[in-house]
Amino acid sequence: MKKLIEQYIGIRKRIKAYEYALYMISWDSETEAPSGCFEYRGEQIGVLVEESYRIETSEEYVHVVDTLYAHRDELDADLYHEIVEVKKHIDKTRKIPMDQYVAFQILLSKSQTIWADAKKKNNFELFKPTLQKIISFLKDYIRYLETDDCKGYNILLDEYEPGMTINDYDQFFNELKTRLVPFVKKVIAKAANDESFLSGKTFDVDGQKQFCSYLQDVLCFDRSHGLMKESEHPFTTGSGSTDVRFTNHYYPKNLQSALFSAIHEMGHALYEQQCDSKYDGTFSTGGASLSLHESQSRFYENILGRSKAFWEQHYSVLQRQFSKELQDVSLDEFYRTINQVKASFIRTEADELTYSLHIMLRYDLEKAIFVEGLSIDDLQDKWNDLFFEYFGLVVPSVKEGLLQDIHWAGGMFGYFPTYALGSAYSAQIFHYMKKDLDFEGVIASGNTKAINEWLKTKIHQFASSRYPKDIIRQAIGEDFDVSYYIDYLISKYSCLYGINPS
Amino acid sequence: MKKLIEQYIGIRKRIKAYEYALYMISWDSETEAPSGCFEYRGEQIGVLVEESYRIETSEEYVHVVDTLYAHRDELDADLYHEIVEVKKHIDKTRKIPMDQYVAFQILLSKSQTIWADAKKKNNFELFKPTLQKIISFLKDYIRYLETDDCKGYNILLDEYEPGMTINDYDQFFNELKTRLVPFVKKVIAKAANDESFLSGKTFDVDGQKQFCSYLQDVLCFDRSHGLMKESEHPFTTGSGSTDVRFTNHYYPKNLQSALFSAIHEMGHALYEQQCDSKYDGTFSTGGASLSLHESQSRFYENILGRSKAFWEQHYSVLQRQFSKELQDVSLDEFYRTINQVKASFIRTEADELTYSLHIMLRYDLEKAIFVEGLSIDDLQDKWNDLFFEYFGLVVPSVKEGLLQDIHWAGGMFGYFPTYALGSAYSAQIFHYMKKDLDFEGVIASGNTKAINEWLKTKIHQFASSRYPKDIIRQAIGEDFDVSYYIDYLISKYSCLYGINPS
Repeated sequence: MKKLIEQYIGIRKRIKAYEYALYMISWDSETEAPSGCFEYRGEQIGVLVEESYRIETSEEYVHVVDTLYAHRDELDADLYHEIVEVKKHIDKTRKIPMDQYVAFQILLSKSQTIWADAKKKNNFELFKPTLQKIISFLKDYIRYLETDDCKGYNILLDEYEPGMTINDYDQFFNELKTRLVPFVKKVIAKAANDESFLSGKTFDVDGQKQFCSYLQDVLCFDRSHGLMKESEHPFTTGSGSTDVRFTNHYYPKNLQSALFSAIHEMGHALYEQQCDSKYDGTFSTGGASLSLHESQSRFYENILGRSKAFWEQHYSVLQRQFSKELQDVSLDEFYRTINQVKASFIRTEADELTYSLHIMLRYDLEKAIFVEGLSIDDLQDKWNDLFFEYFGLVVPSVKEGLLQDIHWAGGMFGYFPTYALGSAYSAQIFHYMKKDLDFEGVIASGNTKAINEWLKTKIHQFASSRYPKDIIRQAIGEDFDVSYYIDYLISKYSCLYGINPS
Repeated sequence: MKKLIEQYIGIRKRIKAYEYALYMISWDSETEAPSGCFEYRGEQIGVLVEESYRIETSEEYVHVVDTLYAHRDELDADLYHEIVEVKKHIDKTRKIPMDQYVAFQILLSKSQTIWADAKKKNNFELFKPTLQKIISFLKDYIRYLETDDCKGYNILLDEYEPGMTINDYDQFFNELKTRLVPFVKKVIAKAANDESFLSGKTFDVDGQKQFCSYLQDVLCFDRSHGLMKESEHPFTTGSGSTDVRFTNHYYPKNLQSALFSAIHEMGHALYEQQCDSKYDGTFSTGGASLSLHESQSRFYENILGRSKAFWEQHYSVLQRQFSKELQDVSLDEFYRTINQVKASFIRTEADELTYSLHIMLRYDLEKAIFVEGLSIDDLQDKWNDLFFEYFGLVVPSVKEGLLQDIHWAGGMFGYFPTYALGSAYSAQIFHYMKKDLDFEGVIASGNTKAINEWLKTKIHQFASSRYPKDIIRQAIGEDFDVSYYIDYLISKYSCLYGINPS
């Protein structure tokens, strides 16, 4: 057994080294690679992926994993979990015919360009045949992977958030429909004449960068194990707990964008940095799931980053940075502006309150496709109908509707719900955090160290060595419950907009 | 044969992909990686090197190369040259006992730290035992690789500059001793009271960056196939002609440093960018040798970058960038300052005229060690004696003498002479360039396009598909001749310092 484990660790080390090389190359691609280097680079990536694939599908590796799996009860808890997951991954690979899988990857490599073109031309017809092929592959994919325990659309949901099913999400979104949609409509009506105190002003990009650097200190981002850089779209990446990187984007006319992107990405980054380093180099490295990751980024961005307490502490620093631009904007006005609610068509620009309704719409549509067999010809109408139902607005164009997101063009059906689940998790976690520590007191201390520590102990340290549902249950003593999220939103926005929360 | 070549190309593709991954990682290490990531990174690099080594020493690869080598007369010229070089590399690996090679690599991995410590403490004794071991390994190394055609120190010289021997370098440096050393002494005496018009001023780093960006346009550096970034020590790197990167370093108190580092590195970078792209992905990619590379960087830095014609064109732009700092510095004063001669102890700070004397001293020392059997105990005295002979100065401390360079701590004996050879090549190339084009006219056109084109046609395009001596012979119609270099220096500095050039 000891020899077998050593053999496993030896092969894992090789696979991880390829992962590392590809991480470095992709970081470079996203942040600074010259435009003309991508053709040659593509070939090199191809070879490295192939080398790694050769190891992952080698008889030796498969045999070692199968044997360890058969004797999994003799393994410690960490390795047990890892082997179960690796075995799941290998079995999945075995069930899908290689030629079909390769054809799908080739399709995906082209589909994002086709989607981008269709979006630009505001014409769904251009993307329809490709989307049809993607859906059709995913239906086959589901058939290949179905078991007695997990069937249909659940296969896709489980892919992105282990353990989550249609039942779980239905319960979640039904609550949103019942309690949140009517409330949102009230707020939107009230917010119609809101004034933005930041619009029309120009904020020097260097000044924005300096303030984001200040935010790194406030959030205790560990600069010796990570860095902040620029890219077109903000994102977080890394390799283990000792190298975690995030990017930001700066718009002179939009100060909010850089501030809250930075805080959001640092939520992701802190999660990665605070994973126990014993998981570095294993397959249990990094956050436990997409929704747990999103729960951290949304917690820092919205619950902490858009709180009054946070800006009571830091607004004066921002004002000093932009003394001319912000001299006539009071803390209260700033606070109202960063929490302004607005019915908007674009998910990525949505405010905290309306955000999850955008996700709900996408979930409804995916379910219609994979459960109810909705025809692709009816997709656009369905989107527009649902949008009117949830937001009371008529979608003006398909690029502001069905074509706005890249996810489906990347084959990612089942992904969207994790965004909403993450937001909901964050409110429930926040509820229990406040029982253990004086949230506003910590913020008043000038940095978020004690909050980070709490999250590290309760969630981060476990990396992905356990299932997200188990981490949550152990952290707060109960299972997921959407009511915390709805209560949090109704309480915050009732207060902001003077609405009777009944 | 066709099948064999395909097999070779298949394996080469794999080896090149590892090289690419390691290039990306090392670029990141040099320019932005967080300090705490290096331990984990070291392990990943180790695995990737091992994976690549496994392929390079595989029976399959060795067999393919051996067979192609046996039938090399059936190959086209490019592949012929490549196979000869690869075969040479493999044979070398075969001749050195693996355990001794590994022990040497481990020694080198520690020696640079030991050297740095000894330099810091200004104490050669701390480094002596390590240096002794390095020299002793290299003496074994020479014995393993000696053939009837190539013996002794020539083995090391050939390693860094294919085809160059003690005879060649002796001839070269003897000319310098006879003609240049006396001239340099005259100039140094005259230059003793020179005034620097830039010293004592502060040049804003952002302004320096902007001007270096302007220089990229002037030198026609192709931004779609490369980029400029910052690092502690300027360097150039890349992978093929489509991805060539260089770095610079900015000192507020030293404007010259950034300007001439940028031009120097762009000399290297242009060479790489202008290689025929058909060599990308082969082992004939990139510049043909260290000295040919240095001939390009020194050409751009010194012959072009420190010429009057160049600054007649661009000094007004620099003055606009630093209007306050340079308002009282005339073009003539600026030109004199960037060409100021000064006897100095540190090679990397040396001016164009005295630079090669620093190299000559190192060559003399290496030859004394490997040819004359100089004892390591006499090394420091020998350094100091030679320094007095060439510069007329007494070396004040070993950190400003024998311990100043990192090369020997890295096992790199035989490397230094390529620096001087490169400078000398550049003057000879320049002589022939002027026969084909109006050098000053091109510079007056605002950019160096026509000069770049000439170098591309004559030298760059061939990448390393031929030996440097052959490239030079074809480019200018004759072999290397040091007199062009000495003539160039004497003519330029006689004029600058009002010395009778006889």
